[in-house]
Formats: sequence, structure tokens, C-alpha cells
Amino acid sequence: MAVKSRGRSREQAIEKAAELYAERGFAATGVAEVIEKSGTPKGSFYFNFPGGKEELGVEAVRSAGGNLEAGINVLAESSDSPAAFLDSLVGALVAGLEASDYSRGCPIATVALETATTSEPLRSAAGEQFAAWQRAIARGIAGGDEPKADDRLLAGQVLMLLEGALLMSRVGRTTDPLTGLGPAFRKLVED
Amino acid sequence: MAVKSRGRSREQAIEKAAELYAERGFAATGVAEVIEKSGTPKGSFYFNFPGGKEELGVEAVRSAGGNLEAGINVLAESSDSPAAFLDSLVGALVAGLEASDYSRGCPIATVALETATTSEPLRSAAGEQFAAWQRAIARGIAGGDEPKADDRLLAGQVLMLLEGALLMSRVGRTTDPLTGLGPAFRKLVED
Repeated sequence: MAVKSRGRSREQAIEKAAELYAERGFAATGVAEVIEKSGTPKGSFYFNFPGGKEELGVEAVRSAGGNLEAGINVLAESSDSPAAFLDSLVGALVAGLEASDYSRGCPIATVALETATTSEPLRSAAGEQFAAWQRAIARGIAGGDEPKADDRLLAGQVLMLLEGALLMSRVGRTTDPLTGLGPAFRKLVED
Repeated sequence: MAVKSRGRSREQAIEKAAELYAERGFAATGVAEVIEKSGTPKGSFYFNFPGGKEELGVEAVRSAGGNLEAGINVLAESSDSPAAFLDSLVGALVAGLEASDYSRGCPIATVALETATTSEPLRSAAGEQFAAWQRAIARGIAGGDEPKADDRLLAGQVLMLLEGALLMSRVGRTTDPLTGLGPAFRKLVED
């Protein structure tokens, strides 16, 4: 019972941290704020996260990254064509931006940029998530087949465009950069 | 003389701040560290920056953004073709990453993502720089002519790809995402 409760408070802290990191980054989000806003016991934080803030950061990157990967996989499986898959992926990202008043774009880009030079565990955790998203996008582009080298290459280009568009959308407080990606996607997908 | 010296210490603080923001972001870079590492007088900081850290941030975004814009303009003027322009732009960004051991990708993306939700002056300053880069890239694509609507659209796509590639390059500690953009650029530029 106590173990279960501790596991839950760890999960709650990770989820809240991921949310705050997406909105304003790793450095601006203190451990005390995560504890307070997640409603988790202060005393158990370093029991749950012996590695402190960096461990919380790594887990938050994995959690947020895993959620997005799962979402991409659902869209990949439910789309009839590469074009429909990319449209639905853009639609999901647009919905996330709008629901959060442009606070939530890429769930890990801010943390990744902040820590790429200063924390090897965080850099590495972010790199694994980007690679997982690229694989998931490649599956969506391959339309249910095993992705080929071309699909993986294209998925990388799609991911870079999406990351750039999410940055521009947050900064511009408009979804135009994302919703305008259609023509670029079509040119890239054409052989 | 005193005024000139104060102007110089303001510039030095702005340059050092821009460098640190590019490496690890706005929140992780304290004013005290900027003062110390720029070798500027502590006592004059709030005289030079009455708006404090946020003002320093806005000036750093403008300074770093203006430097990149000027660099893009030089490449635009010295390139024979849109393809040569894009190659030289990628080359300049690769050189920056390598010279800094992958610490410096986009000079303002980290700050922009960190502050888009929390600081209207910083969000707005970053937005102006992205718009200026897009205009400069459009001129490079137009090959010296006045950019048309298509050039501006394409410049936006190029900028998004570059931002995504710089993110992936920093996180992956490899320039492959940037140097691999050639095929995507060629597909986008083709009519």
C-alpha cells in the first residue's frame, strides 16, 4: 500500500514536471514548485528521485516523449495514407497548442536545448525520444509496412519541419506555421 | 568618456549573455554570471539595464539575431544560385556547431521556447528575429531579386527545417541532420 502510494506520487511529480518543462523549460522549474503543484509529499521527493532534479528531468522527458510516441503510433495505425497520417499529426499538434493557449508545443525541445551542453543524461534521454518519434513517423509514412530507408529519411525531414513549426507557432502565437506545412510535406513525399 | 565606457560595458554584457543563452538558455544564466564573465562593473548593471534581466534578454536576442541576419545577408549577396546560398548557409551553421563543440546552434531558439509563455517582451523580440531571418533567407533564395510570395513561403520552410536540424544536431552531437538537408531543400525548391 505504501509502496503503491509512493509509486503514484512519483508518477504525479513526473507528469507535473513534464507539463512545466514544456511550458517554460527545465531551469525555470524548481523542484519545490513541482512538489507543490503536483500535490506530492515533500519528504519523499529525494526518496522517489535519488538523482534529484536531473533524474526528475530524465523521467519527465521519457514520460512526455513516450506519450507523444504512443500518440503518433495511434495516428499511424488509423490513417489510410501517408498524407492523411501527416494531416492528422499536424491536427493533433495544433489541438495541443490551442488547448494550452500556445504554451505546449514540443514537449521536450526546450529541455533538450537547455541541457544538451550541460547534462549528458538529459541530452541522451532527449535524443532517444527524438529517435523514437522518427521511427513512429516513419511507420506512419510507410502506411503500415515496415519502413524503408527512404521512409526513415523522410520521417527525419518531417520531424525537423514539425519542430521548426512548433517553435514558430509558440513564438508567433499562431498555428499558421503548422497548418501551412501541407505543401512542403507533399513536395517531400513526392518522388 | 564615461558614457562611452558605459556603452561598451553594456555591449559586453549583452554579448556574453547571448553566448550563455545560446548554450544553456535564459533561466540558467544568472545576471551575476553575466556580469562576472563579461568583466563588466557590477555596480552599473541596473544603470545599463533598468529593466533588469528581461531587458538584458531582449537585447541579447536582438544582438544575436541581428548578427545572424547580417551573416545570412552576406551569404545571400555572395551566392550564385539559391542552391549555393542554402549550401553556404548550412556550411556556416555547421561551422558554428563544430567550433563550439555543439554548444551553439540557433542563437535564440532556447530563450524563445523558455519565454514564449512567460515574457511578452522576449517572445516578441524573438518573433521579430525569426521574421528578419525569413526575409533574409527569402532574399538569398530570390538570388538578388526582390523576393516573391513563393520565395517567402519557401524561406519559411527552410527556416523551420534549419531550426529542427539545429535542435537535432545539438542533441545528437552530430552535424548529420544539417548536412543531410540538401535533398529536402532541392525538393522544396523544385517547382
